[in-house]
Amino acid sequence: MAYFDAASAAPLHPVARQALLASLDEGWADPVRLYREGRRARMLLDAAREAAAEAVGCRADEVVFTPSGTHAVHSGIAGAAAGRRRTGRHLIVSSVEHSCVLHSAEAFEADGGTVTRVPVNRAGAVVPSEYAGALRPDTALACLQSANHEVGTEQPVAAVAEACRAAGVPLLVDAAQSLGWGPVEGDWSLLAASAHKWGGPPGVGLLVVRKGVRFAPQGPADERESGRAPGFGNLPAIVAAVASLRAVREEAAAEAVRLRELTERIRARVARTVPDVEVVGDPERRLPGIVTFSCLYVDGEALLHALDREGFSVSSGSSCTSSTLTPSHVLRAMGVLSEGNVRVSLPPGTAEEDVERFLDVLPGLVAGVRETLGAPASEPAAVLTRDALVVDALGKRCPVPVIELAKVFGDVPVGGTVRVLSDDEAARLDIPAWCAMRGQEYVGEEPAERGAAYVVRRVS
Amino acid sequence: MAYFDAASAAPLHPVARQALLASLDEGWADPVRLYREGRRARMLLDAAREAAAEAVGCRADEVVFTPSGTHAVHSGIAGAAAGRRRTGRHLIVSSVEHSCVLHSAEAFEADGGTVTRVPVNRAGAVVPSEYAGALRPDTALACLQSANHEVGTEQPVAAVAEACRAAGVPLLVDAAQSLGWGPVEGDWSLLAASAHKWGGPPGVGLLVVRKGVRFAPQGPADERESGRAPGFGNLPAIVAAVASLRAVREEAAAEAVRLRELTERIRARVARTVPDVEVVGDPERRLPGIVTFSCLYVDGEALLHALDREGFSVSSGSSCTSSTLTPSHVLRAMGVLSEGNVRVSLPPGTAEEDVERFLDVLPGLVAGVRETLGAPASEPAAVLTRDALVVDALGKRCPVPVIELAKVFGDVPVGGTVRVLSDDEAARLDIPAWCAMRGQEYVGEEPAERGAAYVVRRVS
Repeated sequence: MAYFDAASAAPLHPVARQALLASLDEGWADPVRLYREGRRARMLLDAAREAAAEAVGCRADEVVFTPSGTHAVHSGIAGAAAGRRRTGRHLIVSSVEHSCVLHSAEAFEADGGTVTRVPVNRAGAVVPSEYAGALRPDTALACLQSANHEVGTEQPVAAVAEACRAAGVPLLVDAAQSLGWGPVEGDWSLLAASAHKWGGPPGVGLLVVRKGVRFAPQGPADERESGRAPGFGNLPAIVAAVASLRAVREEAAAEAVRLRELTERIRARVARTVPDVEVVGDPERRLPGIVTFSCLYVDGEALLHALDREGFSVSSGSSCTSSTLTPSHVLRAMGVLSEGNVRVSLPPGTAEEDVERFLDVLPGLVAGVRETLGAPASEPAAVLTRDALVVDALGKRCPVPVIELAKVFGDVPVGGTVRVLSDDEAARLDIPAWCAMRGQEYVGEEPAERGAAYVVRRVS
Repeated sequence: MAYFDAASAAPLHPVARQALLASLDEGWADPVRLYREGRRARMLLDAAREAAAEAVGCRADEVVFTPSGTHAVHSGIAGAAAGRRRTGRHLIVSSVEHSCVLHSAEAFEADGGTVTRVPVNRAGAVVPSEYAGALRPDTALACLQSANHEVGTEQPVAAVAEACRAAGVPLLVDAAQSLGWGPVEGDWSLLAASAHKWGGPPGVGLLVVRKGVRFAPQGPADERESGRAPGFGNLPAIVAAVASLRAVREEAAAEAVRLRELTERIRARVARTVPDVEVVGDPERRLPGIVTFSCLYVDGEALLHALDREGFSVSSGSSCTSSTLTPSHVLRAMGVLSEGNVRVSLPPGTAEEDVERFLDVLPGLVAGVRETLGAPASEPAAVLTRDALVVDALGKRCPVPVIELAKVFGDVPVGGTVRVLSDDEAARLDIPAWCAMRGQEYVGEEPAERGAAYVVRRVS
């Protein structure tokens, strides 16, 4: 049994558990009340706020506790954008932000605002000069994650913060994935985070709004948390969250070295032992515990289930594992292969043996999934029309279109082209990615009666 | 040590504590994930939803878990009003709703909507015919609490629901105070509640949206909880909340009888042993555990502190205990005395001895506070001008204006009037209430250079 999905949620840290139990007894009352149970709750809340501020590197009165990281992001973006409404209605995000940031951006657009989505390079990072180029006189707010949740790539937050500061635009940093590892570098204005990513209980987010940042909370008024997070606070969980943050920080430096070695091992070994694999994300500037790779000709869901049967819990950005049947927006923005995608995110304390066992079973599991999918189609998929080969993969889901392409590619003469007809959203990403991996030319996409035709030229 | 403020927050029920511990181990993973930890979390979540639905009396797919009762109310009102935007932009609330409902109404007004606030009678209840009279063709939503949080009065929900149903208007019931005692009667459309009121942990609210109710969630999109409550769910707390609801419901019938006897004892004994006291709220149609009274010539905060020193934790709707220095909007809407206000809300399991001890010490504590306040002012407060007495209580806070009125009232001839100059918001409520208690005539309010002049005529 090995849980390798810490980037989704981490099990409760033992220190958090202890703190939760203690504060369930001491911190259940309403901290605004004047009697002793209320005063005791208030003292716990104040102490938690001080400790959180110290871990973030800010003032205690800049910290707001919210019910989740998503609430912190939603309230932070809405409040900061409204606070600068007179400056303008332009918002900047990177194209690989967490969905809660992108959903906020969509809501902002629906409300009449304009959004620039800054692209990323193939490693998943924004380029500071490109980000800076998106700043406009009417930019109300800029958002950038500290590190990506799907591929682990760290963003150049300090450089972007400097550009934003020079332009007088506040920068909101979504630090959900990194705050357990250390404070966020640079001169940012707002910060959001989520306790269950660092071993705190669910139900606690952090929103930090630096003094001097214009902020107009949206939605119905409420007196709690400086009017920035409505509802009765979840004090026992807040106390536990902060205790956990302090505890993981104490272990962070040593554990980062250890996990970095383990993920480096996965990066290297997977590339060597699994054929047709693309390891994605920045090899250097990345979080210690996350490593992500995509396997050509593999169904992500089938691989997840195969890993689950062997006792490994991982997640995937493949289209077949999402409710909308579209590949992860992060992989799309990076332009990397999305089929057979696996994200391994190791929780602190992961045993080396578990990683070794994972590396031992993975090649066989990938081969098994490929074998199942590789069975020849009942009807011939490719027909020669005029001068070009056409692969009809309509109605077939990822990774079948790429498998069918690969199967006929040997029949294409060098210089010849093949058209893959597909109505699967993942093909738009995976066929170009296959070309890049195989050194073939991706010519482009043509409209078709159903779906699209993806044109590939054989160059070698 | 006796905690008598269950209407604010109840300590964690032992069953909730057990359930929380168990589900911290079993339910920390993301329930949308496909691996075993995720599937286990999903099973816990599904079971909790079924159990919550059974306790509410609705379908499981009508239940949404939110981060607090306040979130349930905010999202419920915003979503239901937006869902019926084409019908109109009129909202009905009672004037004694919880502040989170009234804050939603204010946000709705700020957004261009119209709000009718239905008044209550002196017992704190709306009159069904009056509520029905507020329904209009453009009414998008009506809101009514099941029972009042400050005075315990139950509202005629079934009758109001029937009127709303006849008019085709959905009714949202804020059941925060009553859901632990039993399901809400009548044919309502939406329901909101808060787990920490029934001994569940903080961090869990319930929003129920009946099938067929038009509902358009507001704010950024999110896939979780049918798109009606964004953010990673607080599953361990949800499991604990539902376990607690089931547990308190099993004990509810017997405990209601016991607490009702205790609060009846407080109602009767306080009226007998404390001079110049007004016991407020409906004597019959009320929650089992809440009893509220106001003491003339008493500073609410001083009385709270005196009770706290004796080991009793209660709350107050007096102006001096609020951050805004205004009396509770509930007491104002009822038109009852707000000075020296005490709300006693007994948690299930309250010991009879504690109530007896409270009743033993209360008269002495009230007398003590009155003695402190009753010391004569250093300058004469009343001067005879023309034909009427004027009491200058400018700059004096509740309960001093009423004390000064009482001190000079003996000098007023029958048929004569006295003007109390006051800039304290509480005087507007407490001077008429004093007249009602004393059988004197409250003539009305006159504008004054500072504050207002409250005119009282001596009739006996």
